Amino acid sequence: MEMKNLIIASTSTVHGSGYLEYLLDELALFFKDANTIVFIPYARPSGISHEDYTIKAREAFKKIDKNVMGIHEFENPIEAIQNAEAIFTGGGNTFVLLYQLYKNNLLEPLKKSVLKGTPYLGTSAGSNICGLTINTTNDMPIVYPPSFKALSFMPFNINPHYLDPIPNNKHMGETRETRIKEFHAYHTQPVIGLREGSWLQVTETSIKLKGPLTARVFEYNKTPYEIESGTELKDLR
Amino acid sequence: MEMKNLIIASTSTVHGSGYLEYLLDELALFFKDANTIVFIPYARPSGISHEDYTIKAREAFKKIDKNVMGIHEFENPIEAIQNAEAIFTGGGNTFVLLYQLYKNNLLEPLKKSVLKGTPYLGTSAGSNICGLTINTTNDMPIVYPPSFKALSFMPFNINPHYLDPIPNNKHMGETRETRIKEFHAYHTQPVIGLREGSWLQVTETSIKLKGPLTARVFEYNKTPYEIESGTELKDLR
Repeated sequence: MEMKNLIIASTSTVHGSGYLEYLLDELALFFKDANTIVFIPYARPSGISHEDYTIKAREAFKKIDKNVMGIHEFENPIEAIQNAEAIFTGGGNTFVLLYQLYKNNLLEPLKKSVLKGTPYLGTSAGSNICGLTINTTNDMPIVYPPSFKALSFMPFNINPHYLDPIPNNKHMGETRETRIKEFHAYHTQPVIGLREGSWLQVTETSIKLKGPLTARVFEYNKTPYEIESGTELKDLR
Repeated sequence: MEMKNLIIASTSTVHGSGYLEYLLDELALFFKDANTIVFIPYARPSGISHEDYTIKAREAFKKIDKNVMGIHEFENPIEAIQNAEAIFTGGGNTFVLLYQLYKNNLLEPLKKSVLKGTPYLGTSAGSNICGLTINTTNDMPIVYPPSFKALSFMPFNINPHYLDPIPNNKHMGETRETRIKEFHAYHTQPVIGLREGSWLQVTETSIKLKGPLTARVFEYNKTPYEIESGTELKDLR
């Protein structure tokens, strides 16, 4: 039986507060049975090193008395994932993250570990890889991963940092809504536009929207619609 | 000898004016020896069909008395490119565009045609593919092309629709400058951030910034800097 237990967050940081701060109360509960969290720093935001990124995560989790070990600190990263009490994959560049996971053969170990119940926190890029594919990331394709297929912990995709169209915007680049519409010219799975401050709480029987905001759901051939916090999404596919 | 002749524009449309309108005077001159322009509609903005997109391009070029033929209207697209008097690749999704060019084996014919002097206009996605790779596109990776390598008409990459960081922005998604910095953690070629209304005029001996605005240049391991319209970029690599 599957034992999934995930928090899939749009962002690590909401405006005006520290790294992971808005989620810490939730995370103290979520990670209550873990002393040490294995951190996957592969997404390297702004190109920072695995070491520096791990220090950042370590400082945040110190506030709720958790240790953090970067996966690059283990001799065998596959075993690190297999033996982890808890896993956190940070944000940054989704292409870089997925590339590195494929390179280190970590997709299958990650899947197995999460499906047997190891609590998993993802933020931004670390959340993107929980959907079916990374086809709906906002990130720049700075490296070429061997595939866009991701961990498929949910039967749909997400779009983190979801941004509403800005009224009277003079910039002619595509809006997020237009980009997702383009996605649906090629794929039929739903996409959840997760605004900053929102997350999905995923267990073996439920996928629930959490946080103070609504989210926007894009289903194939349907008008996009808003869902309230607390909405159950397990039947969305 | 190479006979390149390209206009590589950030956007097709500037705020408050019609499709290609801001460029039409320039294009009348640029395409003066062509009666018919072969249009590549593969990038499908908002997922519109090749037919509808071609109608849009046709209407714009009617104003300067040019015919437009969509490449999908030809029995043999490779021959269409080989025999074209002029080529225009429109914007939309860069991944979709490059995927379709690879699928139809059009990269090499396009290269050859442009290197023998066929005038080429690109806007947005149609400009992205003129750089070394599409690693610096803003678009969503909705399809998986067989490679990110592009036409390499210039020894660097561009970032079209370049957006400056917005002061006091509450959105925590990465700025364009941050994304390009992440790119330079993996690659050394320069990136030109082309603002809307700017274009590069490329010939066999020159690559010049045109239009009313400055552009932002990102070189590996250097502080980004602005260049004035008229700046010669042929030695940038």
